[in-house]
Amino acid sequence: MTAMQGARRRERRQRTALVPRRRRVARIRPGALPGTLEAPESMAGQPPRITVIAYGPDTHVEREVARIDEALAEGTPASVRWINVEGLGEPDVLARLGERFGLHPMALEDALNVPQRPKVERFEASFFVVLRMVRPGPEVEDEQVSLFFGRDWVVTVQERADWDVFGPVREALRQRRGRARDAGADYLAYLLLDAVVDAYFPVLERVIESVEALEDEALEALPETLPRIQQARRNVFTLRRAVWPLREEIAVLERADAPFVAAETRVCLRDSYDHAVQALEVIESLRETLTNVMEVHLSAQNQRLNAVMKVLTVMATLFIPLTFIASIYGMNFEGMPELRWRYGYPSALALMTVTAAGMILYFRRRGWW
Amino acid sequence: MTAMQGARRRERRQRTALVPRRRRVARIRPGALPGTLEAPESMAGQPPRITVIAYGPDTHVEREVARIDEALAEGTPASVRWINVEGLGEPDVLARLGERFGLHPMALEDALNVPQRPKVERFEASFFVVLRMVRPGPEVEDEQVSLFFGRDWVVTVQERADWDVFGPVREALRQRRGRARDAGADYLAYLLLDAVVDAYFPVLERVIESVEALEDEALEALPETLPRIQQARRNVFTLRRAVWPLREEIAVLERADAPFVAAETRVCLRDSYDHAVQALEVIESLRETLTNVMEVHLSAQNQRLNAVMKVLTVMATLFIPLTFIASIYGMNFEGMPELRWRYGYPSALALMTVTAAGMILYFRRRGWW
Amino acid sequence: MTAMQGARRRERRQRTALVPRRRRVARIRPGALPGTLEAPESMAGQPPRITVIAYGPDTHVEREVARIDEALAEGTPASVRWINVEGLGEPDVLARLGERFGLHPMALEDALNVPQRPKVERFEASFFVVLRMVRPGPEVEDEQVSLFFGRDWVVTVQERADWDVFGPVREALRQRRGRARDAGADYLAYLLLDAVVDAYFPVLERVIESVEALEDEALEALPETLPRIQQARRNVFTLRRAVWPLREEIAVLERADAPFVAAETRVCLRDSYDHAVQALEVIESLRETLTNVMEVHLSAQNQRLNAVMKVLTVMATLFIPLTFIASIYGMNFEGMPELRWRYGYPSALALMTVTAAGMILYFRRRGWW
Amino acid sequence: MTAMQGARRRERRQRTALVPRRRRVARIRPGALPGTLEAPESMAGQPPRITVIAYGPDTHVEREVARIDEALAEGTPASVRWINVEGLGEPDVLARLGERFGLHPMALEDALNVPQRPKVERFEASFFVVLRMVRPGPEVEDEQVSLFFGRDWVVTVQERADWDVFGPVREALRQRRGRARDAGADYLAYLLLDAVVDAYFPVLERVIESVEALEDEALEALPETLPRIQQARRNVFTLRRAVWPLREEIAVLERADAPFVAAETRVCLRDSYDHAVQALEVIESLRETLTNVMEVHLSAQNQRLNAVMKVLTVMATLFIPLTFIASIYGMNFEGMPELRWRYGYPSALALMTVTAAGMILYFRRRGWW
Amino acid sequence: MTAMQGARRRERRQRTALVPRRRRVARIRPGALPGTLEAPESMAGQPPRITVIAYGPDTHVEREVARIDEALAEGTPASVRWINVEGLGEPDVLARLGERFGLHPMALEDALNVPQRPKVERFEASFFVVLRMVRPGPEVEDEQVSLFFGRDWVVTVQERADWDVFGPVREALRQRRGRARDAGADYLAYLLLDAVVDAYFPVLERVIESVEALEDEALEALPETLPRIQQARRNVFTLRRAVWPLREEIAVLERADAPFVAAETRVCLRDSYDHAVQALEVIESLRETLTNVMEVHLSAQNQRLNAVMKVLTVMATLFIPLTFIASIYGMNFEGMPELRWRYGYPSALALMTVTAAGMILYFRRRGWW
Repeated sequence: MTAMQGARRRERRQRTALVPRRRRVARIRPGALPGTLEAPESMAGQPPRITVIAYGPDTHVEREVARIDEALAEGTPASVRWINVEGLGEPDVLARLGERFGLHPMALEDALNVPQRPKVERFEASFFVVLRMVRPGPEVEDEQVSLFFGRDWVVTVQERADWDVFGPVREALRQRRGRARDAGADYLAYLLLDAVVDAYFPVLERVIESVEALEDEALEALPETLPRIQQARRNVFTLRRAVWPLREEIAVLERADAPFVAAETRVCLRDSYDHAVQALEVIESLRETLTNVMEVHLSAQNQRLNAVMKVLTVMATLFIPLTFIASIYGMNFEGMPELRWRYGYPSALALMTVTAAGMILYFRRRGWW
Repeated sequence: MTAMQGARRRERRQRTALVPRRRRVARIRPGALPGTLEAPESMAGQPPRITVIAYGPDTHVEREVARIDEALAEGTPASVRWINVEGLGEPDVLARLGERFGLHPMALEDALNVPQRPKVERFEASFFVVLRMVRPGPEVEDEQVSLFFGRDWVVTVQERADWDVFGPVREALRQRRGRARDAGADYLAYLLLDAVVDAYFPVLERVIESVEALEDEALEALPETLPRIQQARRNVFTLRRAVWPLREEIAVLERADAPFVAAETRVCLRDSYDHAVQALEVIESLRETLTNVMEVHLSAQNQRLNAVMKVLTVMATLFIPLTFIASIYGMNFEGMPELRWRYGYPSALALMTVTAAGMILYFRRRGWW
Repeated sequence: MTAMQGARRRERRQRTALVPRRRRVARIRPGALPGTLEAPESMAGQPPRITVIAYGPDTHVEREVARIDEALAEGTPASVRWINVEGLGEPDVLARLGERFGLHPMALEDALNVPQRPKVERFEASFFVVLRMVRPGPEVEDEQVSLFFGRDWVVTVQERADWDVFGPVREALRQRRGRARDAGADYLAYLLLDAVVDAYFPVLERVIESVEALEDEALEALPETLPRIQQARRNVFTLRRAVWPLREEIAVLERADAPFVAAETRVCLRDSYDHAVQALEVIESLRETLTNVMEVHLSAQNQRLNAVMKVLTVMATLFIPLTFIASIYGMNFEGMPELRWRYGYPSALALMTVTAAGMILYFRRRGWW
Repeated sequence: MTAMQGARRRERRQRTALVPRRRRVARIRPGALPGTLEAPESMAGQPPRITVIAYGPDTHVEREVARIDEALAEGTPASVRWINVEGLGEPDVLARLGERFGLHPMALEDALNVPQRPKVERFEASFFVVLRMVRPGPEVEDEQVSLFFGRDWVVTVQERADWDVFGPVREALRQRRGRARDAGADYLAYLLLDAVVDAYFPVLERVIESVEALEDEALEALPETLPRIQQARRNVFTLRRAVWPLREEIAVLERADAPFVAAETRVCLRDSYDHAVQALEVIESLRETLTNVMEVHLSAQNQRLNAVMKVLTVMATLFIPLTFIASIYGMNFEGMPELRWRYGYPSALALMTVTAAGMILYFRRRGWW
Repeated sequence: MTAMQGARRRERRQRTALVPRRRRVARIRPGALPGTLEAPESMAGQPPRITVIAYGPDTHVEREVARIDEALAEGTPASVRWINVEGLGEPDVLARLGERFGLHPMALEDALNVPQRPKVERFEASFFVVLRMVRPGPEVEDEQVSLFFGRDWVVTVQERADWDVFGPVREALRQRRGRARDAGADYLAYLLLDAVVDAYFPVLERVIESVEALEDEALEALPETLPRIQQARRNVFTLRRAVWPLREEIAVLERADAPFVAAETRVCLRDSYDHAVQALEVIESLRETLTNVMEVHLSAQNQRLNAVMKVLTVMATLFIPLTFIASIYGMNFEGMPELRWRYGYPSALALMTVTAAGMILYFRRRGWW
């Protein structure tokens, strides 16, 4: 491989892989004992962003605090307190939350050691729910949200501080929309879970659009379609991995017979369940469509090759015998009587014309012309 | 890409995508609290068409009303009242119906926020059934029907006012055919569900015809077959999405031990269940056939390429050596004794003939001639 | 597309689709109320053929009757009476049978409205079994048999009068072979079901033979193989549709705890069950084999294209440089010293020989020669 | 198709299908009543080979007998008697065994009517087990073994007399190895079943070797690979059909609560079960590998075609313009000034060189050179 | 096939199959009675490496012993003793361990007769767990670990002495990290199992990297990609075979109600279960990705062929008519008036230019230029 080829190849790779990929696997440190809290390497030491929202039917306080102890010492009387930690850089924050709310060390480890498979774990006085938010973009990205909740508190732990899907929930709490501020921590947990589920739909719509564009594009058999199909597949895959375990999660929550989960919340979860199932069905249909798109692409490539080859065959087959005739009379033999015939040249031209007509007729009969 | 190519491409796309596609996903407004009734954007404000049919063994009144309150205030004594709302433009209509018949806000939301996954939900004094009607055409379209029923009332909500599949049911009520007017609201609900199921079959027949045509067409490997296969796949997919959840739905209704569902109705549902299973089996066989059609199409393309290439190879391979011989004797070297031989020219022609005969023999042995 | 192409295409279609296809779907008349008995359009009014066999350990009467009432009025004392109706043209016949033996209207509708999915339905004093007989031929065809039986009677309804698989059962009754005449109506029902199952095997053997022929044929990549593979797939599909639901049917019958089904009959059904499972396994293996055959066919096509292209490439690549050399010395420039060299011509020929030898060497190293 | 082609084709077929295939389906005689014992056509009348081994802790007698009655009349006192019948030519032998040991007529029919699906049937005082032995070879063959056993007797019925897998069991009985002679008939049955299972492994190893060879071979895209892949698939298929039902069979035996099956034997069956599962996993992995091999083969064919076409394209594209230039100056026009230029000829050669260099540069940039 | 080709082929094979493959199947010696302990042929006679670690909260002794009896005679009082045997060369070692700890002969046979399917077997006073460690490398290799444990002892048997994954566990015991030395033998067994599971992740990461590289590489359609895809598939397959049965194993251990398994250990196993599920999901996603990679590779090959053929077609189609024109005027007929025309030569050149321009225009319209 020459240097130039290498350069071209690199360039092409950059062109096709426009967006960084993150097929992440939780980095399990072989040798670490279970239950050890350690920050992911890339974030170690970066202080997380901590916000506290304490509310009741008539109160609503929303603050950002610098240290976790401020959040825990919160003296305002409130029915529910929601502590939101964004960033995994300081394991101590989680350790402190664990002490205060009695969270299991292994659950805390799962919150730090991202990405975990979405799941629900029930402890005596609390639930631990792992969710995946997805973020739209050419390459769909996911981010883990760990959600702990007990009788009157909710703790959420996000991987990064730059983005989340909880804006509408915060707004509902501020404006006391619906039952948001009247119900308990279980209802807040439901609202957060529902926000995560709802946020799948705009992402799904974008992916649907891209797949529908591919459905048309595949008929063209363009070289640039192939990497686009691959990217769409990765996006569908990311979504599937986020949504697939959700159904089971919600079903577990719905069935859970905990004193701090109201019957009404469970009815609401049924609605989230329906949405999750709906998202999953769209995802499955996208998977099937992409398989079809790939097949169509392959078939369109064949079509194109056929078209190209037909042109080559027609042209070559038409002119090769004619050129042969011409080259015969280009020979320099002495005794070639035709060369001296009076109508030698016109006859040769006529022979060529007849030959060409014959070929064309043959092509027409085969449907190639 | 030149401008001309772009134009050609657009044109081709228009040609292949003759019919508009609707891979719809329920637009969930992130941030809206659960249970909020809002009309779909595209229909907001358009007044729905409301019809009321009130009947008993001896009475039958059928009216179109302008406002929902007229429908509710209906004073005629009747065993069953069926209110049919076509169009989702005014959420208030649903809200009023919800108040009057005690419908759950989330069920009403599902009736508005189309398309929902077909499902059955049981409430204390009513059932909520989501169904999908399909409408024949080159591109099969589906429309959601939300069916609510209680002891003596049935409410149906359709997406659009231009078309439905309930004509035969209306006719049966008018003419007091069978048990139509003697039985209760549960029997009417069954009749409506059965009408939806029965309406799948004419659509299925049209799709079967198109797939059978494709089975023959695929053997031709024509370029226009590919988009047709894609369209047939979309149609089968739409049908499958409508029929697949039906079996479970009917099974749920059949098992439901509600006081307002007569045993006789349940026996009838068994028949609808059989029909749904039958439709599903045809759909599955169509899916399989379309996979085969695609394979056959690919193989036929290869066949065609092989045929084209064989012609090219035979022609080129036949004439290339002959032309080479001619070109040798077209050289202008001085000392070429053959040129001066008495039988130089005939010998050259004979050499060509022998070469050609040898090639043809070779082709015949390989079965290419 | 010219007219001639159109003609060729039609002709080809006729050649490939030698046998008529019947992917039938039960024609459900939208609007007809459930339980309405109507003859299929194509047969309406054609009188069915009705035969009655009444037998006991010591009696055996076999008659063909013109009207159903003769069959019902049969006065001979006999342990079991078997009424066989061939043809669906007169719904009244079924209605009369329904009255006499207490058959459910919906079961009668299923007997008329062919094809139904094979199934077993149990009523208080009778069973209703839907079966599919298959008939060998290039295109395997199926025909519905509806089998009703009670304590001392069996009613079978066939679609058409021209053919059935019950000959051996009739013969066994005539000759009092085995327990045929000593056991009850349940045993006759078993014998009929077993006759349907046994008749799958000769059909299966023919299909196996055709698939095995295709396994060899696919290696040739002939154009006529493709439609044959399609036909074999359709045949396997027809068989699968007939046999698949049978296992469940027989299992239902075996478990059924009806007073008019003897324990001994249930043991016999276990044998039929084994046969059905065996047939299904052969069918599944045929499906898999056909998938492989298609793959092999595709690969053999590629092989063939490769062979063709190798010949073209070798020939073209060999002669193109030689012809180029010859054409150089065919130029008419004045100052071409080689043309005047003493050994100019032999040198040119030598150069060509060396070039050709080099090419051939290259081809051999790549394994193309 | 000429005669010569036909001959070539036949020859090719013989080459690829080196070994006879036996996709056997039990020949069910339509019309025969259930429970009728008839020898398979191909073996009718051939006397089977009958051996008897009677043993106890301290006795061991092994004899070949000419008539089945000798085997049954065996007077020696022994704890267990094993009668082994090889060959299905005389149904009377089975009938006599049936009378003596109370075997069910339908089980006897299954022993004659080979091949049956492997299964276990329990009768009051005996078990009936259908097994499939496999025999190594280029084409893996299977043979049915029907195994009946009761309190103190075992009867095995094999299809053919030329080969079996029970040698090690006979040896263990002769030499009183392990518990072989101390345990009852159930333990002997287990040893025989285990011998059948163990004999799968050497066959599996041969198939694994052939599949691994194909994995490398597929990368070459040779024409002879295709029939080899087909044969490997058939072998895997034969093995799968033998092993698949085994797991269920052994599980049934293990659970069976029969007084004549010792608890210890059941523990041993757990080991056989593990072996069967292991064999099945290897078989499944072979299936998957063969699918991959086929894909790789297809891709390697494409690779090969690409390589061939690249050579053709490079050669043709390189020389076609050069030949065109030469042919221009080979024209015989009178007014061609270049022909008379002093440096006409060298200029033409230079032009050709530059053109060729340009083409080569282009090819290098595309990575084709 | 010439000798040279053979050599090339062998060479290519060596290049692609860089690493030795081990699709191993347990060598079951047909004829050996169940429960016989025999060393695998390749290791027979090689003495294993035996290490003993005896520990309690306050004690920790770690020794390598030459003979198994030294390990068993260990007099130090300790809460738990872990005997680790590396190498299967001396079956007597296992026999002695079996006697001492009451291990079932069949379990011991499974420890020797590698590889067994991963499984858990419970005996009265001990558990037997078969696990598979995987070792990173271009070709992922697996090695069986047989783990026996009772109230206060753990025995592990490894296939080979050169490598294991238990380093972190040994370190934790030495340094009394976590609860390692305070808990019982069941906790040690958990730690060992967890170490096996954790060690999958670095291997998985390497495989993920290789698959991601293939995702880009496949777009290039290079010949060397194909064997790499095959190798990645084998690696994924090896991992899957190791991880797939693990979930069930851990679930069995978790549910096991044995007095010598502490409740706390079961909670810990839940964590290992989650990890196993996570590993399996990654593996499944890799399988899917590799299927896509193969498809993309095929499509990219087609793309490449299309590109090559387009160049050939354009070049050939462009120059063939031009060369034909030139060859016409290279004929030597006497009466060719054009040759004498004053502007004959320029006209011919003009004709050629016009023809070429026409072709180019045609190519542009088809988007080939």
